[in-house]
Amino acid sequence: MSSPAAGFPARAAIIGTGLIGTSIALALRARGTVVWLDDTDPAAARLAADIGAGQVLPAGGLPGGPADIAILAVPPAAVAPTLAGAQARGLARWYTDVASVKSLPLAQARARGCDMSTFVPGHPLSGRERSGPAAARAELFLGRPWVVCAGPGIPEAGVAAAEALARACGAEPVRAGAAEHDTWVALVSHAPHVVAAAMAARLAGAPGGALALAGQGLRDVTRIAAGDTGLWTQILAANAAPAAKVLAAVAADLAAVAESLGEVARSLPEPGTLTGPGTIAGTAGGPGAEPATELKVLTALLEHGSAGVARLPGKRGGPARAESIVQVVIPDRPGELARLFQVAGSAGVNIEDVGIEHSPGLPVGVAELTVRPDAVAPLTEALAASGWPVRR
Amino acid sequence: MSSPAAGFPARAAIIGTGLIGTSIALALRARGTVVWLDDTDPAAARLAADIGAGQVLPAGGLPGGPADIAILAVPPAAVAPTLAGAQARGLARWYTDVASVKSLPLAQARARGCDMSTFVPGHPLSGRERSGPAAARAELFLGRPWVVCAGPGIPEAGVAAAEALARACGAEPVRAGAAEHDTWVALVSHAPHVVAAAMAARLAGAPGGALALAGQGLRDVTRIAAGDTGLWTQILAANAAPAAKVLAAVAADLAAVAESLGEVARSLPEPGTLTGPGTIAGTAGGPGAEPATELKVLTALLEHGSAGVARLPGKRGGPARAESIVQVVIPDRPGELARLFQVAGSAGVNIEDVGIEHSPGLPVGVAELTVRPDAVAPLTEALAASGWPVRR
Repeated sequence: MSSPAAGFPARAAIIGTGLIGTSIALALRARGTVVWLDDTDPAAARLAADIGAGQVLPAGGLPGGPADIAILAVPPAAVAPTLAGAQARGLARWYTDVASVKSLPLAQARARGCDMSTFVPGHPLSGRERSGPAAARAELFLGRPWVVCAGPGIPEAGVAAAEALARACGAEPVRAGAAEHDTWVALVSHAPHVVAAAMAARLAGAPGGALALAGQGLRDVTRIAAGDTGLWTQILAANAAPAAKVLAAVAADLAAVAESLGEVARSLPEPGTLTGPGTIAGTAGGPGAEPATELKVLTALLEHGSAGVARLPGKRGGPARAESIVQVVIPDRPGELARLFQVAGSAGVNIEDVGIEHSPGLPVGVAELTVRPDAVAPLTEALAASGWPVRR
Repeated sequence: MSSPAAGFPARAAIIGTGLIGTSIALALRARGTVVWLDDTDPAAARLAADIGAGQVLPAGGLPGGPADIAILAVPPAAVAPTLAGAQARGLARWYTDVASVKSLPLAQARARGCDMSTFVPGHPLSGRERSGPAAARAELFLGRPWVVCAGPGIPEAGVAAAEALARACGAEPVRAGAAEHDTWVALVSHAPHVVAAAMAARLAGAPGGALALAGQGLRDVTRIAAGDTGLWTQILAANAAPAAKVLAAVAADLAAVAESLGEVARSLPEPGTLTGPGTIAGTAGGPGAEPATELKVLTALLEHGSAGVARLPGKRGGPARAESIVQVVIPDRPGELARLFQVAGSAGVNIEDVGIEHSPGLPVGVAELTVRPDAVAPLTEALAASGWPVRR
């Protein structure tokens, strides 16, 4: 194992060897950092050590003096007590955490009498639904944002150490105040989780016939609701005020739409009782017709939603860039994708993403290949020349 | 072009050559059906004909007598007037539509004095966000459900003809009453669209720092909100009562969670004023601790959501089946995926799905290969033997 690059931590202690802690450990090990692992569950620490994440922290403490940095990879409510314990053992020069809320653990640490001159709150945004050390991987943070809290009362030299940790894991450090961070993640992470759950909850008692009609849209809207409900209760409770604010706004918008759609429904005749041409206000006036008053609420929300989606950064971070999709019909058997990618590779085309739509009961699928716009023509030609049914 | 297989329509008229109409036309053409195309925009019909979807319907009407079936691929509000016009021209033996709501167009057709003995409402669930004939493809309906309305007042021989149409397009016909259909799609399609929009609308005015933290979860929750807002207003207005019912329930659940999180927030001390160990009720009691009363509402919703997601059928339709994921680190350059798929193909492993996570600024990505559980071992061994860094 080589020595760590300048600035990266040479010696690190990880407390909590779940998905995040173990992934950080793996990333640091790949950089040459010496890593010690600790967990309230000794079996979890041993498992992490077994998959190459470092060595188990001896009960007698860390040999050779304090580590450069200790990472508290524990749930939000455990940050303050874990910090107090680690500081009491003199485990490291700097301490940081990975909790997805920042203000409350910071206040709790202060209230508990922790040494606030060595604690720098942090939050790597890795975004995985799986958990546990076995799901960990060194690449978890590659190119992802990693918030490091800066601001009054937070030591600047420690901020630099936490940023070096983030960079050692391949992440992009983002400085933010603790309260600012909490408002941001309430919007982009915590509230969406509850919104997904609220939609998914309607499916719990739904008829099978309805579920059989579900498509990719519903699957996408509800996917994150499959996460760990206990952990999410804790996260939301620890970021209660900002999350409540977003959720109240979403609830109010949905209630307003439900109310206005109720008015639309009441203005419609019962099926079978229509005696005239039977139009819906605002829906039968042809293109460009003014929507009825009741529908303005709905249309406005849909338009705000469309504008909101458009603001989300692209897949690689940064502004979304132009990408094109080429569709290819492929037999659903081993080797076919290999042949396809070989043809693309021979044509010098880099495929940015692949999606496969399967067809139950039918021996074909449709591969959607995402490429840069200037690669569409060479890819299409190469595939067609090799006999693939292709459509841009 | 060969003759259509027994039962499939030999001659079909498509009115409305948008995405759905043109895709049906392409699918029918592939089966040997003779297809005539019509659209209120003659350029759209010509474009559809140009990409091989059939021939433009002559102004003088269909040569050779009525078609076996006419497909009205028009927005919900246009179904009744389009049906009346088509029937007046004696265009076909049977008429069906593709609108995503069923009760209202049926009632409107009845009220307009249409011949209800030849009209069978239908709804192919294709689920694409794109639109227009250029996005059409014959595979759009492969393996997807296609609801054909059956029940009192709907001609049984026509139901069989509409089911044959669905099968000719590779879809799986599902019989349902019109009202039943409308309740189902309100739940799995219409309400989720508004819920996604309501969440996405919160992003419209959000700070850039917040958006930079967005991950795949938020992208998935809000993706469908990018759809055509005018069309969705029309769809929701035409299915107002069932959609309003689902949305009111979601709004009430979210409002209750917002309210209870507000109570949690008020029970917390202001940051900086904590004087004791500072715990959150229900979050610091360790595993198995009983959540505080205010959090029970949240936990219950998250658990219902998790149960709801678990009921969604798997990617191929039918009950979700066990799948495993193998992760492989790949250099982000042409030819690498080809090599990977070649190794998988040589090992006799069929890759069910592929996702690629990119790493901005770094020359590697992580491919997630979805395979059957019994393929994990042979795939992992084959990849490792060929020098791929692999993780289950």
